[in-house]
Amino acid sequence: MIVSVDDHVVEPPHVWERWLPERFRDRAPRIERKGIAGMRHIGGGTYEIEYDDDAPQADCWVFEGQVLPHKRHVAAVGFDRDEMTLSPITYDEMRPGCYDPKARIDDMLMNHVEASLCFPTFPRFCGQTFLEANDKELAHACVLAYNDWMVEEWCGDGGGHLVPLIIIPLWDVDAAVAEVERNAARGVHAVCFSEIPPHLGLPSIHSGYWDPLFAACAANGVVVCMHIGSSSKMPATSGDAPVAVAATLSFGNAMASMSDFLFSGVLVRYPELRLAYSEGQIGWIPYILERADDVWLEHRAWGGVRDLVPEPPSTYYHRQIYGCFFRDNHGLASLDEVGVDNITFETDYPHTDSTWPHTKEVAEKMFADLDDATIRKIVRTNAIRMLHLDLD
Amino acid sequence: MIVSVDDHVVEPPHVWERWLPERFRDRAPRIERKGIAGMRHIGGGTYEIEYDDDAPQADCWVFEGQVLPHKRHVAAVGFDRDEMTLSPITYDEMRPGCYDPKARIDDMLMNHVEASLCFPTFPRFCGQTFLEANDKELAHACVLAYNDWMVEEWCGDGGGHLVPLIIIPLWDVDAAVAEVERNAARGVHAVCFSEIPPHLGLPSIHSGYWDPLFAACAANGVVVCMHIGSSSKMPATSGDAPVAVAATLSFGNAMASMSDFLFSGVLVRYPELRLAYSEGQIGWIPYILERADDVWLEHRAWGGVRDLVPEPPSTYYHRQIYGCFFRDNHGLASLDEVGVDNITFETDYPHTDSTWPHTKEVAEKMFADLDDATIRKIVRTNAIRMLHLDLD
Repeated sequence: MIVSVDDHVVEPPHVWERWLPERFRDRAPRIERKGIAGMRHIGGGTYEIEYDDDAPQADCWVFEGQVLPHKRHVAAVGFDRDEMTLSPITYDEMRPGCYDPKARIDDMLMNHVEASLCFPTFPRFCGQTFLEANDKELAHACVLAYNDWMVEEWCGDGGGHLVPLIIIPLWDVDAAVAEVERNAARGVHAVCFSEIPPHLGLPSIHSGYWDPLFAACAANGVVVCMHIGSSSKMPATSGDAPVAVAATLSFGNAMASMSDFLFSGVLVRYPELRLAYSEGQIGWIPYILERADDVWLEHRAWGGVRDLVPEPPSTYYHRQIYGCFFRDNHGLASLDEVGVDNITFETDYPHTDSTWPHTKEVAEKMFADLDDATIRKIVRTNAIRMLHLDLD
Repeated sequence: MIVSVDDHVVEPPHVWERWLPERFRDRAPRIERKGIAGMRHIGGGTYEIEYDDDAPQADCWVFEGQVLPHKRHVAAVGFDRDEMTLSPITYDEMRPGCYDPKARIDDMLMNHVEASLCFPTFPRFCGQTFLEANDKELAHACVLAYNDWMVEEWCGDGGGHLVPLIIIPLWDVDAAVAEVERNAARGVHAVCFSEIPPHLGLPSIHSGYWDPLFAACAANGVVVCMHIGSSSKMPATSGDAPVAVAATLSFGNAMASMSDFLFSGVLVRYPELRLAYSEGQIGWIPYILERADDVWLEHRAWGGVRDLVPEPPSTYYHRQIYGCFFRDNHGLASLDEVGVDNITFETDYPHTDSTWPHTKEVAEKMFADLDDATIRKIVRTNAIRMLHLDLD
């Protein structure tokens, strides 16, 4: 049975209306159904939307005057690859496993998945939606409400099949530390973070600003999970490039982030800290480790790197970083370099890329040349260790 | 004997004063010696400079009011790794092989290098200096003067050891085509181009704007050489990251550019076109090819990619793209995926990363597990084919 460290929840309509304190509820993110004739991404998760009552209906999150329709590619399970468009969608058209925990567990079990870590959708991959909100008191309450729903409701009744993953108020490191500690006390071992905080207008990991957060995560065994897209700005070449270019390069910020951490000294100062790159795939890791070690060795006069990073950077990768993949033959062919203890597996339910419901077949084909002990580490025990799960 | 497809020339002081037409000469880029107490890179190759007559002297290019000191890391041969700083330098302190073709050939031959393709320094990797010039008539004349010096003087007397590589007026595709054709007629088979033209404020490769250039290169057997840095903007995480992070990620734009070309249809429309990624290394190529083919297969509803690109993208890589490396064990361990006919070798003389004068030892160690026929392709015959050299 698989432990998947990267799936997604489409939040059901009631999350904030039920879990926000009374005084915030009239301003809670809520779902409205609208006819949508067209939508165009204008950057940072914001869309220019053309409404038309006679057009196909979509369920939309409405928050602080922004309207964000649900889109088919983030609730893609059950649709054919050739139907996989960016068009809007209602809850009624989604497979219930997208938003309902009981239905999700059924979908997991039929796909040989025993446990799943789910990233947020409306809050975006590390809670950027609330970082960008105007009313930060409301936004802070929304972060806490999401986490309460995540822990108590999404994971609460799931018999351990659903593993909690929280978000933090990214604009206030002290409040973020408090939220990590509040949730660690009820058994949460995973928090969302941005691959590259400066891309969100936040201090870098080199600034020292985030050290209290890293310290809290290290002290409480909370793995820092950075999903592709958690920098908002994706790697890109030009506005008129086919979408396929950005899809190919989607791991770029994960790669940049890993280089950033390897040379930051953060992993040296917090040896118990663990990082996870979600949906980043792994086939690029051997090159980055070799290049980072080469730069560490050859460019040593260029800026005191050895004071910050006393051992070759790959040392800290092997000790403290987890990669994650769903389909990556080159990465598997390079297991000696990627590290058999450093990689975890995902199904990416319910996104376009998801291998559901054929994950086992995909895995068996990919893992054909590996021995059982290695496969077990990759699909299960590395994730159990990373997430402190009560499984064998 | 090695054929190196990525080295660098530090232009001698007389290039433009000798090769520009008479009427431009008083405005030619020229060298002035100045005392420099400090310099700080403020982006796009421009430095904020603190002058002091009592400070160490540097030779500086002066052009259109800009002052650009020579820096030690671009003339690094002969210095120890621990002396490799960004500090200014004079021609007198440089090893003559940096700027003198006869001295260069001596340095090549003692390092088992038979032929070398050299990128520009003052014009930057694809001629950005002249793209950014205010007077475009002068800039155009400077491009032609550089190419005349490159062909007639740098390579002219070298008995074929030095291989010409031209620049183009990037702001005018018709003039660029004319320059490719003018030089092809005297045996030039390599031209500098930008990995990602939009990063220079130019149209993308998807726009169709560059098609006449690609057509001219394909028709004349001129390989399009894109050096790391030819997008000016390097991949970066944050301003306060150690230099080592950017050095580790220096191949990022090459990787983005290759993805861009694979999905552009350019390689489909111009099957005779050849691209070369210089100093990009190769260890990341297997992952990108696998990912691009996966995206092509799995995301097919996302935007008509199959109309532009009828075969899996890796098909065009193997047919039309060359990688290039100087040290990359992972890439060599993945030769089946990188393609034994797709990679070339470099010494990066006289940059910080250069393996000179130990290239043969470095190569022998790296190639220990390869057979002689494979080594010969990598260090020699692939480059001979790519550059249409008159060598065996």
